Amino acid sequence: MRLVVIGGVAAGLSAASRARRLDASLDVVVLERSSHVSYAACGLPYFIEGRVRSLDQLTVYEPAWLESRRGLRIRTEAEVLSVSHPKREIALRGERIRYDKLILATGARRDCSAIRGADEPHVFRMDTWDDAAVLKQFLEKRRPARAAVAGAGYIGLEAAEALRSNGLAVTVYEAGADVLGREDPWLTARIRAHLERCRVDLRLSTPISAIPDANVVILACGLKPNVALGADAGVELGRTGAIRVTDRMETNLHGVYAAGDCAEATHLVTGRPVWFPLGTTANKMGRVAGACAAGRRERFPGIAGTSIVRVCGLGVGSTGLSPGQARREGFDPVSASIDNLDKAGYFRGHSTAVQLTADRRTGRLLGAVIVGEDGVAGRVNVVAAALHHGALVEEFEMLDLAYAPPFAPVWDPLLIAAHELRKLLH
Amino acid sequence: MRLVVIGGVAAGLSAASRARRLDASLDVVVLERSSHVSYAACGLPYFIEGRVRSLDQLTVYEPAWLESRRGLRIRTEAEVLSVSHPKREIALRGERIRYDKLILATGARRDCSAIRGADEPHVFRMDTWDDAAVLKQFLEKRRPARAAVAGAGYIGLEAAEALRSNGLAVTVYEAGADVLGREDPWLTARIRAHLERCRVDLRLSTPISAIPDANVVILACGLKPNVALGADAGVELGRTGAIRVTDRMETNLHGVYAAGDCAEATHLVTGRPVWFPLGTTANKMGRVAGACAAGRRERFPGIAGTSIVRVCGLGVGSTGLSPGQARREGFDPVSASIDNLDKAGYFRGHSTAVQLTADRRTGRLLGAVIVGEDGVAGRVNVVAAALHHGALVEEFEMLDLAYAPPFAPVWDPLLIAAHELRKLLH
Repeated sequence: MRLVVIGGVAAGLSAASRARRLDASLDVVVLERSSHVSYAACGLPYFIEGRVRSLDQLTVYEPAWLESRRGLRIRTEAEVLSVSHPKREIALRGERIRYDKLILATGARRDCSAIRGADEPHVFRMDTWDDAAVLKQFLEKRRPARAAVAGAGYIGLEAAEALRSNGLAVTVYEAGADVLGREDPWLTARIRAHLERCRVDLRLSTPISAIPDANVVILACGLKPNVALGADAGVELGRTGAIRVTDRMETNLHGVYAAGDCAEATHLVTGRPVWFPLGTTANKMGRVAGACAAGRRERFPGIAGTSIVRVCGLGVGSTGLSPGQARREGFDPVSASIDNLDKAGYFRGHSTAVQLTADRRTGRLLGAVIVGEDGVAGRVNVVAAALHHGALVEEFEMLDLAYAPPFAPVWDPLLIAAHELRKLLH
Repeated sequence: MRLVVIGGVAAGLSAASRARRLDASLDVVVLERSSHVSYAACGLPYFIEGRVRSLDQLTVYEPAWLESRRGLRIRTEAEVLSVSHPKREIALRGERIRYDKLILATGARRDCSAIRGADEPHVFRMDTWDDAAVLKQFLEKRRPARAAVAGAGYIGLEAAEALRSNGLAVTVYEAGADVLGREDPWLTARIRAHLERCRVDLRLSTPISAIPDANVVILACGLKPNVALGADAGVELGRTGAIRVTDRMETNLHGVYAAGDCAEATHLVTGRPVWFPLGTTANKMGRVAGACAAGRRERFPGIAGTSIVRVCGLGVGSTGLSPGQARREGFDPVSASIDNLDKAGYFRGHSTAVQLTADRRTGRLLGAVIVGEDGVAGRVNVVAAALHHGALVEEFEMLDLAYAPPFAPVWDPLLIAAHELRKLLH
């Protein structure tokens, strides 16, 4: 019985490892197009920043370890050209591999074809190990003074922070009206103000058709699910453009699974499929795909839409729907936002901003944004847990949260925001 | 219409303020036995430690502000001698006050009558403003070298930390076998090891009948709900010894409410009443009692049993039931514990220990302990939110938690612990 996994980073390796652990008789082959598997891609911005000294620090497992300890067969620089599911066969250059089960973990790609000059030598991406290696070399050799970043999503803002902290003047161009793709003017205004303080020039509603004038340019826009291989093989795509999967991560083709940035997930607030490419989701999907490919019945319930990003030292976390997204999904959203100390002043409390959104008709919590210097992940995770369970605002405001002066105020900013939101619901 | 509130700290002032805000026609009178209302009692250990410079820093609202801005009548040094509910009348020294509605927020008391020497001049408590004031004065004047603390609950451990950080040699005597009253050998072992590293001598299973030999002694044991006044007036007590209340915070006497450390709360995991005296719960109960006394229908659903304490620099958070408590409540508990980095090493990740407990029969999550230097409150709060909703371990392990290298690892320690626990459930 052979399981072939196409893609060897987050989803692919989680899937391969899990499948093999659950069924030691499986012949598990991982095919990775690039020369590196199993590395922490989310750490690449911190290599550019200089905090991570060497890319090797981002290696999670060495191929030799994965082979000897996990019993996987790892093949790098193995680009799959096509999949023939009727024959259960994969074509590589000059070679064919048969499979019994197949997991597609082909990730995402950037479509920058509409940008003139995207192939000039001072234009880079920051998505893979190789991208980061060449960008870093360019920065060290050329010492550019002015950088342009195309796209104000997670990677774009992380790239801006990394370059700014190295002393470059940075301009970020974003085609949409908002940052982080959340359609949230409240959040956008806060991040814009913070970027101004850090002297990063953010230009919203500014699509670029040609590479802007700068000494170094990072393309962090145009992210799309990488689905051509699957689609050519007959795998069905969903309305988001990513691969449609069941909650067992199976595609429309029996025995073919998809996981990670190439696949859709169910949004737990709306119950509808979304494309939300993030490392943490990729790992969870991969685990479930691997378990199911190994014959176990597991399911991936979906995502709350949680994410966090550091923007020039500030923590920005969000989960669930923004007011704009909620409206488009048919809810009647109402939001409250507050700014409060995250602990007693004598414990150097910082201001934390919380925006909570609920549905006016049902009182159900729909989403949150937290912005602050400390405790952002913890607070956004509390809301995520509440969203997993469909919490009402009146339930949320009664949460028994931990309190002691070194850690939190007696009324946590989350609960103060919930009180304000509750008033608007009556 | 007059509402009288007996007790002017957390629960009492929350209740009084909320009632008056919802019904501006109410005559709200707050009677406080001591000379101080509205202060952050949980900050007292940090005044002893020296981080809080003056007790005035712990004042939340001045009486004059509460009177002019919130419309409350505040009376300090007003000790209530008795309550006659048939007459709707309260007796103070040389005075009687009529009420229409009454809220008991009489707090907790320490019963140290069994300890010989408890009234010696070098023996102190750390529960009230006045306690802290005299203890601080003693420490500054006498510069004692050796301290004894009776009790290893929250206050006892906070007192030990405060004294140790001032250079005193500290011994903590605890009658029970465990710290923090959680009957949890795993937690006790961790705290004991940490206290040893900090050179605090912890003596468990060591009840004291006489004041131990030391230059200064803190009594932090024998905490009981302060219910004599209510009980004498005919208010029913529950099996915990605290005042039994409905979810509207009403006692058996119509129009008489109780809130805070004198009252019971429903434990959300067991559905049974518990006595769990903490400031954050007191504030929530007070808010609900005040709203209900003002004629609004609100309810206090109960508590998850969440708490956090700093022990010589280490964060210790817990929520729900310990394995021992779960067994006594009729569950079939199974626990998993792990130690993992709380973020990437290149972001100075620290080790965080997580213990998760579930019920083997149903797979339901029952409780958690988190011990670490950072992120403890956030993680324990995620578990608390899950407990509020009766989460299963298989739901919990799929939580969509925030991930980015500056904030968390791709698999949060909570999820790793959940994976381990899930294995034990099968």
